[in-house]
Amino acid sequence: MATCGLIEYEDASPEVRAVYDDIRETRKTEYINNFWKALAHDPVTLRRTWASIKEIMVQPGVLDPLTKELLYIAVSVTNQCGYCIASHTAAARRGGMTDPMFGELMAVVGMANETNRLATGYQVEIDPVFRTWRTSSS
Amino acid sequence: MATCGLIEYEDASPEVRAVYDDIRETRKTEYINNFWKALAHDPVTLRRTWASIKEIMVQPGVLDPLTKELLYIAVSVTNQCGYCIASHTAAARRGGMTDPMFGELMAVVGMANETNRLATGYQVEIDPVFRTWRTSSS
Amino acid sequence: MATCGLIEYEDASPEVRAVYDDIRETRKTEYINNFWKALAHDPVTLRRTWASIKEIMVQPGVLDPLTKELLYIAVSVTNQCGYCIASHTAAARRGGMTDPMFGELMAVVGMANETNRLATGYQVEIDPVFRTWRTSSS
Amino acid sequence: MATCGLIEYEDASPEVRAVYDDIRETRKTEYINNFWKALAHDPVTLRRTWASIKEIMVQPGVLDPLTKELLYIAVSVTNQCGYCIASHTAAARRGGMTDPMFGELMAVVGMANETNRLATGYQVEIDPVFRTWRTSSS
Amino acid sequence: MATCGLIEYEDASPEVRAVYDDIRETRKTEYINNFWKALAHDPVTLRRTWASIKEIMVQPGVLDPLTKELLYIAVSVTNQCGYCIASHTAAARRGGMTDPMFGELMAVVGMANETNRLATGYQVEIDPVFRTWRTSSS
Amino acid sequence: MATCGLIEYEDASPEVRAVYDDIRETRKTEYINNFWKALAHDPVTLRRTWASIKEIMVQPGVLDPLTKELLYIAVSVTNQCGYCIASHTAAARRGGMTDPMFGELMAVVGMANETNRLATGYQVEIDPVFRTWRTSSS
Repeated sequence: MATCGLIEYEDASPEVRAVYDDIRETRKTEYINNFWKALAHDPVTLRRTWASIKEIMVQPGVLDPLTKELLYIAVSVTNQCGYCIASHTAAARRGGMTDPMFGELMAVVGMANETNRLATGYQVEIDPVFRTWRTSSS
Repeated sequence: MATCGLIEYEDASPEVRAVYDDIRETRKTEYINNFWKALAHDPVTLRRTWASIKEIMVQPGVLDPLTKELLYIAVSVTNQCGYCIASHTAAARRGGMTDPMFGELMAVVGMANETNRLATGYQVEIDPVFRTWRTSSS
Repeated sequence: MATCGLIEYEDASPEVRAVYDDIRETRKTEYINNFWKALAHDPVTLRRTWASIKEIMVQPGVLDPLTKELLYIAVSVTNQCGYCIASHTAAARRGGMTDPMFGELMAVVGMANETNRLATGYQVEIDPVFRTWRTSSS
Repeated sequence: MATCGLIEYEDASPEVRAVYDDIRETRKTEYINNFWKALAHDPVTLRRTWASIKEIMVQPGVLDPLTKELLYIAVSVTNQCGYCIASHTAAARRGGMTDPMFGELMAVVGMANETNRLATGYQVEIDPVFRTWRTSSS
Repeated sequence: MATCGLIEYEDASPEVRAVYDDIRETRKTEYINNFWKALAHDPVTLRRTWASIKEIMVQPGVLDPLTKELLYIAVSVTNQCGYCIASHTAAARRGGMTDPMFGELMAVVGMANETNRLATGYQVEIDPVFRTWRTSSS
Repeated sequence: MATCGLIEYEDASPEVRAVYDDIRETRKTEYINNFWKALAHDPVTLRRTWASIKEIMVQPGVLDPLTKELLYIAVSVTNQCGYCIASHTAAARRGGMTDPMFGELMAVVGMANETNRLATGYQVEIDPVFRTWRTSSS
């Protein structure tokens, strides 16, 4: 059970309802998931977090929406966040992620977590050329 | 300085040279980065790690190579691995990542790290519907 | 179920009972939570861990007890430790944490986890002035 | 060197300058630290991140500013983020953190990281009473 | 329920069955644990992961098998991975880990997680002598 | 430079000197590494941390000292703690860790970090049999 419980639409303040309404309209679904209902206990954080998610994940940009969902899963898996893995895996599937795409995503995430530790454990120094490439392209 | 030092091509055993040669041929560059030269102290791990990286990152699949590099950066940043951030940022740039793409990548990674903690800190339970979606699409 | 099971007071050795008694007396409650009952399988670690917790969290210092509980939650949420989030959220509430305080705590924890990754992902170098301030105030 | 370099005030676009100006006015200092100069390559993320930091860390709330800085350090240390440890330790000192306060902060952060792993490693189940407390106080 | 469900032997493709058969033969047991059945949705990753596990954990080396299991638990606990803690604790017990060994393992893991943060939080610079020792022994 | 600087023996209080003396006597070396000199700004934490390290890492137990050092490295690498990787790699080498042992250690640590994410990402449920084994051996 969430720390402060979940706030349903009918029990929500006008401020919270406005966010719920925008989520529904933006996502074209009546469903509000538990994350937002838990966050609704702090309307300031609810509003700011939804506004940020909308700006980052919904507004058109140079990365397509499905790629962003895959990145979200990659982070959530690395952090071992059960809720976000479940919610963003569901979102990615609705957005077109197939099982083979999920399989490759997991392969990359697993490998990156492995080589992160090999690089750090072997105390490998950053190649000067990586810094050069950075400078020249900035 | 790397824990066991770096092994240059001219000092490498035939087993290690074979891996270096394959890296060069696969990547179309003479440059072998420090990660592999450090790992070369353990030829078994060098061989297995390169074979895995090649299978995951180089072999054609359903995710394009640049998306995989972005995912690699997302994991490396979440784990705070300086070496891998530098090397995969360089690789992503060679693969076509522009500064606006990097900006959006960082925005998603930052946001996911934030909401991972909000979801966990509020102890939000996974919506049953997320499990349903999983079952139905598997 | 805990790895080695839980040891209840009536089944405990004198060494373990002494720690349980001190927990009860210090916390003014008969309740011993599962963490200690699980740890009781290793009396040396039980004793040392309780002594450390008592010294750090119970002994008067320059930080007040509630601030220390908030810090404990901040770390536990960042590490995604479900048990410690639950136990220290309960402890903080008994110590006076209100829902608005919890809300602000989560906002700070979420934001810090986000900017930690932005700073690392952008490979930002530490401002020399931060080192100066450190030196001058030490 | 930061991935995309640092953008100084004189080279900044009007959009970026507006954020820099607000940072200066809010913090009562001419100094803009590297984090913002690195982020300035993505004006959208710069603006959103500063607005969030201002709302969370600067606006008056129920937690005092110094407590928030201590929490920020707790998260940054747990994540091993060198830049944020340096910048927020400097900020906390300007805000009144003494060496004894820093010492106690580190003691709590270290201990929490230890018991997080003991609780998880022993696979301790959450005490039902912790859930009761949550429900009753929500 | 696993993201893509679990694939039982009777429903498995010949490619997957070959891996299952090798797991059974190598481990001298009919039991295939859920991890492999979940991974079986991606036969390439299943095959590569099992081959790596077999090379690292099963092939004779300079570290004995039980020490490797203890190391696996140490990493899994640090990462807060519930599944791997459960599976490798079971494996370590089958391999001879006693409760006192588990207790000492947890004590080391907890302490290392604590001092990792103290070292980073105090921003301690690496002693030059540690680099010398590395160089001389490489 | 460490947050509060380093305290050398000649500048240390009697309380700190007592700890330094015990470190020297216990380790049979005049050398005090930077970690302790940084921690010396908080004599209470210095004393407690050294006492814990001595109890866990130095007192004879069922795990041998070198195995404990390998576990310490495994945790430090997983947490990406540069200082502790350097100091405990040096300690392990003095304690008999050879390059092949280091290579196998890194292979296990890398692999565990990979499969931790595969297990979590695939949302694999813990096999009931793992819980049975736990119960029966407790």
